[in-house]
Amino acid sequence: MKYSYLSHVECPRCGAVYAANDVQTLCTCGAPLLAVYDLERLRRDLPGPGALAGRPTNLWRYHELLPVRSQDAVVSLGESVTPLLALPRLGAAIDIPGLLIKDEGLLPTGSFKARGAAVGVSRAKELGIRELAMPTNGNAGSAWAAYAARAGLGIHIVLPSTAPALPRNECLMTGADLYLVDGLISDAGRIVGRAVARHGWFDASTLKEPYRIEGKKTMGLEIFEALGWRVPDVILYPTGGGVGLIGIYKALRELQQIGWLGGKTPRLVAVQASGCAPIVRAFEERREESSFWPDSATVAFGINVPKALGDFLVLRALYETDGCALAVDDDEILSELEGVGRMEGLYVCPEGAATLAAARKLRRDGWIAPGETVVAINTGSGVKYVEAVRREPRAILDKEAEIPAP
Amino acid sequence: MKYSYLSHVECPRCGAVYAANDVQTLCTCGAPLLAVYDLERLRRDLPGPGALAGRPTNLWRYHELLPVRSQDAVVSLGESVTPLLALPRLGAAIDIPGLLIKDEGLLPTGSFKARGAAVGVSRAKELGIRELAMPTNGNAGSAWAAYAARAGLGIHIVLPSTAPALPRNECLMTGADLYLVDGLISDAGRIVGRAVARHGWFDASTLKEPYRIEGKKTMGLEIFEALGWRVPDVILYPTGGGVGLIGIYKALRELQQIGWLGGKTPRLVAVQASGCAPIVRAFEERREESSFWPDSATVAFGINVPKALGDFLVLRALYETDGCALAVDDDEILSELEGVGRMEGLYVCPEGAATLAAARKLRRDGWIAPGETVVAINTGSGVKYVEAVRREPRAILDKEAEIPAP
Repeated sequence: MKYSYLSHVECPRCGAVYAANDVQTLCTCGAPLLAVYDLERLRRDLPGPGALAGRPTNLWRYHELLPVRSQDAVVSLGESVTPLLALPRLGAAIDIPGLLIKDEGLLPTGSFKARGAAVGVSRAKELGIRELAMPTNGNAGSAWAAYAARAGLGIHIVLPSTAPALPRNECLMTGADLYLVDGLISDAGRIVGRAVARHGWFDASTLKEPYRIEGKKTMGLEIFEALGWRVPDVILYPTGGGVGLIGIYKALRELQQIGWLGGKTPRLVAVQASGCAPIVRAFEERREESSFWPDSATVAFGINVPKALGDFLVLRALYETDGCALAVDDDEILSELEGVGRMEGLYVCPEGAATLAAARKLRRDGWIAPGETVVAINTGSGVKYVEAVRREPRAILDKEAEIPAP
Repeated sequence: MKYSYLSHVECPRCGAVYAANDVQTLCTCGAPLLAVYDLERLRRDLPGPGALAGRPTNLWRYHELLPVRSQDAVVSLGESVTPLLALPRLGAAIDIPGLLIKDEGLLPTGSFKARGAAVGVSRAKELGIRELAMPTNGNAGSAWAAYAARAGLGIHIVLPSTAPALPRNECLMTGADLYLVDGLISDAGRIVGRAVARHGWFDASTLKEPYRIEGKKTMGLEIFEALGWRVPDVILYPTGGGVGLIGIYKALRELQQIGWLGGKTPRLVAVQASGCAPIVRAFEERREESSFWPDSATVAFGINVPKALGDFLVLRALYETDGCALAVDDDEILSELEGVGRMEGLYVCPEGAATLAAARKLRRDGWIAPGETVVAINTGSGVKYVEAVRREPRAILDKEAEIPAP
């Protein structure tokens, strides 16, 4: 029994194969690389999910399907399995009684980015990398800064000066070497690219290394395990770079291949903001890749990605699962955010609220059928999105004041 | 087998007994009430902790020792067991290789207050209460607002206008009826007291109802379970109201009575800030109660409590476990906060950093011996404490800039 069944890494576009024990970045064809496991052998060694009983309830419980080959290399901040919560009041209001939310805000650094960072940093450490560099719009930087510090690796982060303040604080307080840039994340990316070339650092940008997606994959593994190794009818994912959606789809296929899941696939939904919907447009035109979305803008900062490196993988997953892509307006996002807070006590992030707004629309259109089980993914805690708060206290009182009757 | 072994509630000062099925507040003598369980029967029914195997890894796994009598009344936002993490680098730096941190920042609403709110709100709902009211300095309000919304209960919260902005946002975004007061939390408490009398709401202020402490108790249960039903040598707790410390001590005694723990007790340490240290002063004078601390001030907002209603219970726990109380300066707190972030990737709150500063001092003094196992409790995520950030980005770059060599 091996800790990891990682076999090699492979290009999903041109099929080129690379050794897993070397440091890998992009394929020579420019596409991101994916990790491939020896699933035949895993199927023989672990005949069923019963093997997981008694393991710690964190994402490392799936270590055979993760790329870290030695348990000693695991870098952990306590990334526990996140809850899959029923939303009875909201579900009733939008006529989806089987509505569930996966609350990723309970991971270290408050977002699902912790999954990619936990696995990506652990694997980088295992491969002997000492210094990481990356551009970020916020939460990815928070997560990678924290895990890099935990691993004892150096990390250099470039953040647009207009990015929210709280992730910036997180990078600083976990000791990252942080730079702001008067520009967009694409400008930050170019600065990182030059620095990597000059200083020999490792470029940990989204999908430029093959392993963060393996961390995101655990979202899917956890959802299927929580449902008793069954799949829901629909999974809604807020799609910027789309790494989580690619990961969930990869989890599905790998579990099917080792025989832990049957043939039924959930319909995957890529949810975007109307102000930045390149995947939606490509899906509507049944294209294989998206086009750059100019002047993108949305309150959901995390899905403001005008052209994703893995767009073809996202679209492929949508087509192969009979899924879809749709966009929601910022107003719908903010109103859904307030609604789920008031009705269910969950303070979700705008990206998470977007998936709920999409569920509402898809049910209204009939795309979601009555009685279906629908999983919305809240990618992070709402608390960091100070800009999305539109409510005010009912009154400011002096010390002798009385609270009037409601 | 009953879901809860709750028997009655009892006054720890005068011994008066009250029925658990009625709504209870304070004892007629003015002291807080504590829940009492039928531990003899529980000992017979559940002979060992093996009974917990396979239960969900959230705080409800200890339901026999919690006051909620019907599983249907449980209100949950996914309050998973929080990690107990080794701190190898910081531990080496302060010569405590057995240093562990319990990271409560991974609970819903980002702090340990979720434990008290989960259990307190569930029990309030079970007892038929419809409207809650409370004063708060921040995180308790965040947690109670979220759980009240999840339960479908109304909640009225009064917050000092000088309190941090983020907990205010949380209260608003989960639908609380929120008021600010130009004054202190004591002024907020008086406004709540008048409103409760006038409107018939339930006063959910700290220790004015008997059940939030039962939620806090699960911190202790989780620590002891994580250590294989052994106790550490020392537990350091940042002490404002002290409910968590009272709860951990209660967990210890209950587990000893049902035979799940042996006779060894951990030494409990109440950590306070130099600017608000009433328990420390009372401990040094070997008194049974503390005195009001005038003009209290500290960056660790959550332990700025000049006189705690449960002070006598905190002091009793310190005396009975051969523990101690000590104060740390704000500068020590902020420097420890930066250190554990940089060394371990953990962004703790100032209150959590205070326990690490205290561990450092106690080891230096020899009060903590070489080789002891020491648990520091980080009561919440640092991300909400925007005021505690003193670091700045290394540079603001223009788009064409290069990152210089480190």
